[in-house]
Amino acid sequence: MNNQIENITSFLVMDILDKANEMQKEGIDIIHLEVGEPDFDVPECVAESVAKAYAEHRTHYTASIGDIELREEIVKLYQREYNVRIEPDQVIVTSGSSPAILFLMILLCNNGSEVIISNPGYACYKNFILAANGTPVYVPLYADTGFQYKIDDIKKCITDKTAAVIINSPMNPTGCILSEAFMKDLSELNIPIISDEIYHGLEYGEKAHSILEFTDNAFVLNGFSKRYAMTGLRLGYMIAPKQYIPALIKLQQNFMICASSTAQRAGIAALQDKSDYVESMVKTYNERRIYLIDRLRRMGFVIPKNPEGAFYVFADASKFTNNSLEFAFDILEKAHVGVTPGIDFGTKGEGYIRFSYANSIENIKEGLDRLEKYLTDLQ
Amino acid sequence: MNNQIENITSFLVMDILDKANEMQKEGIDIIHLEVGEPDFDVPECVAESVAKAYAEHRTHYTASIGDIELREEIVKLYQREYNVRIEPDQVIVTSGSSPAILFLMILLCNNGSEVIISNPGYACYKNFILAANGTPVYVPLYADTGFQYKIDDIKKCITDKTAAVIINSPMNPTGCILSEAFMKDLSELNIPIISDEIYHGLEYGEKAHSILEFTDNAFVLNGFSKRYAMTGLRLGYMIAPKQYIPALIKLQQNFMICASSTAQRAGIAALQDKSDYVESMVKTYNERRIYLIDRLRRMGFVIPKNPEGAFYVFADASKFTNNSLEFAFDILEKAHVGVTPGIDFGTKGEGYIRFSYANSIENIKEGLDRLEKYLTDLQ
Repeated sequence: MNNQIENITSFLVMDILDKANEMQKEGIDIIHLEVGEPDFDVPECVAESVAKAYAEHRTHYTASIGDIELREEIVKLYQREYNVRIEPDQVIVTSGSSPAILFLMILLCNNGSEVIISNPGYACYKNFILAANGTPVYVPLYADTGFQYKIDDIKKCITDKTAAVIINSPMNPTGCILSEAFMKDLSELNIPIISDEIYHGLEYGEKAHSILEFTDNAFVLNGFSKRYAMTGLRLGYMIAPKQYIPALIKLQQNFMICASSTAQRAGIAALQDKSDYVESMVKTYNERRIYLIDRLRRMGFVIPKNPEGAFYVFADASKFTNNSLEFAFDILEKAHVGVTPGIDFGTKGEGYIRFSYANSIENIKEGLDRLEKYLTDLQ
Repeated sequence: MNNQIENITSFLVMDILDKANEMQKEGIDIIHLEVGEPDFDVPECVAESVAKAYAEHRTHYTASIGDIELREEIVKLYQREYNVRIEPDQVIVTSGSSPAILFLMILLCNNGSEVIISNPGYACYKNFILAANGTPVYVPLYADTGFQYKIDDIKKCITDKTAAVIINSPMNPTGCILSEAFMKDLSELNIPIISDEIYHGLEYGEKAHSILEFTDNAFVLNGFSKRYAMTGLRLGYMIAPKQYIPALIKLQQNFMICASSTAQRAGIAALQDKSDYVESMVKTYNERRIYLIDRLRRMGFVIPKNPEGAFYVFADASKFTNNSLEFAFDILEKAHVGVTPGIDFGTKGEGYIRFSYANSIENIKEGLDRLEKYLTDLQ
């Protein structure tokens, strides 16, 4: 068996979720503020486009690179949102953005290659790197600078083994949007950048920048799971510099064949949708965000900087605990509220709790009422 | 960049297909006998079940391991078809069977691990092994024994680095069904067996055996792409010994999250379908198979043993060529028929051509008429 398997970890949030599901089976009502999945329904046009895809017998393989109409819509999205020009042949459509990260790691890593990621950061990144026999190198992010990267911290990590740096803006778990200045500086370092833009579209003030505004020498990851709540359809994509496309298509051909043909038709419909689906969703998220931040602060959580995107609040719980995993389980068991321990996102997340607002305002309110009572009982 | 990338190859059939598509764009009518994709529509129940899934808002993540109803139907399939007992928790649902092979290679291989595969065999297997930093070890198959494995040839390949052996029955490209005696002998060697059972259900005489009839110490790969022509839905699964399940779920969680929620509902409907969909499809394939074998023989191709499953005829073309790639391109250019060069399946496939009968009898007839004329002109 692969001796890296031990190092490839499950998310701790899965343990919380498993326990929560167990409790629910026993009849206990649980409020879920741990999960990172939109509670919204997909846009109406999606079911219609899928029904049409079946009627038109579009149930066969597509080209490995993806449906040309979908790739053209993605090109238009990047033109419209960021004013960057990419070509359809730079877009590879994948079964969600997760396998795209795996393919990029297989593409870029040799045994011992180093990939720079943030601490705290999305729990999976390190596992993709390990699966490709690479080594994750962690750059710490600090609350007092709003969890922004410091370019000098990244520079210090660069060696002749550096295969890539992964950035994520809006960022999971902090909701931080990376500054234009940082992205510009990073682009000038001349190392391959992988920019995970999956939370783009979910911003509550300033818009997030695409790395492609600053350099062509970058890989973009994106998809339909967050912007269109299409998690269950498993539809994502990557945008890559042209010289890497033949190798990436080869990986896709061999390891996935192609993304779902019907999901790809749904993706076209979503990108062509003229309804106010995204705006309306973002408005609702924003109301929840404001409510959640305010109440958490009043309870004694420290939120150094308001999250600006995604659907998470990363709150410093050090007033209550220095063991976020124990704390999260205790909240679940006593208050019946699921939350994600900060340690799940790296050692620099210890002492924090991630609250997701991908849940209704009623549920968030009820969850916070329970949490408030739990914290009062603690004292 | 990964120094294995050069060794991970595209299928040559893709070059044929690209050229064929180019010619089609120029207005040339091409008969496709190269592609390994069913030309059938999905069962009727599939579109209905997907529409229902949307109506029921089943557009969110499922458990990583897969929808419990689907896993229970897969358990019933293996009970019904092979009289083997597996448990739902041994089944992991994946986005097609391809990523399942990748996960198994990542699971079982360390740097330098050896995985035994056949030559000829499915062109991708070696690439999965290389992506996991393993080394493919080839066991030759010979026409004079009907492309059956010889157990002694496998024994000779086993070393202390052997991580697994991959078998595939009915086999691509030969259509051979592995004998019960061989599968029994293989099961006694005490090495992990990966049995790719994706063509199960498409047999024209004796049924293929599942490896699980002979041992529990094996991984099964299967899916919905062949039996139900659901290629575009990307739905597959693996069955694994219990001790590997936690590690495999971890890989799935990290690298895929889950398979499509709506495709999983379609999978349940397909497995519960009481129509004669599969029987009727197999009957049609069989008519094409008999026709194709007969005409190819009369043209001078040698088919040592009639293929017993899948939808391919692997025909010895050494009367005409010793360069199957050149020959395939020449047939395409002059006769406007796409075929797959035998070399695509390994060095032992050289001199052969794979004909797919995943095309209508009318098209097969027209393709063979053109091929016959081409061969006559050759002489």
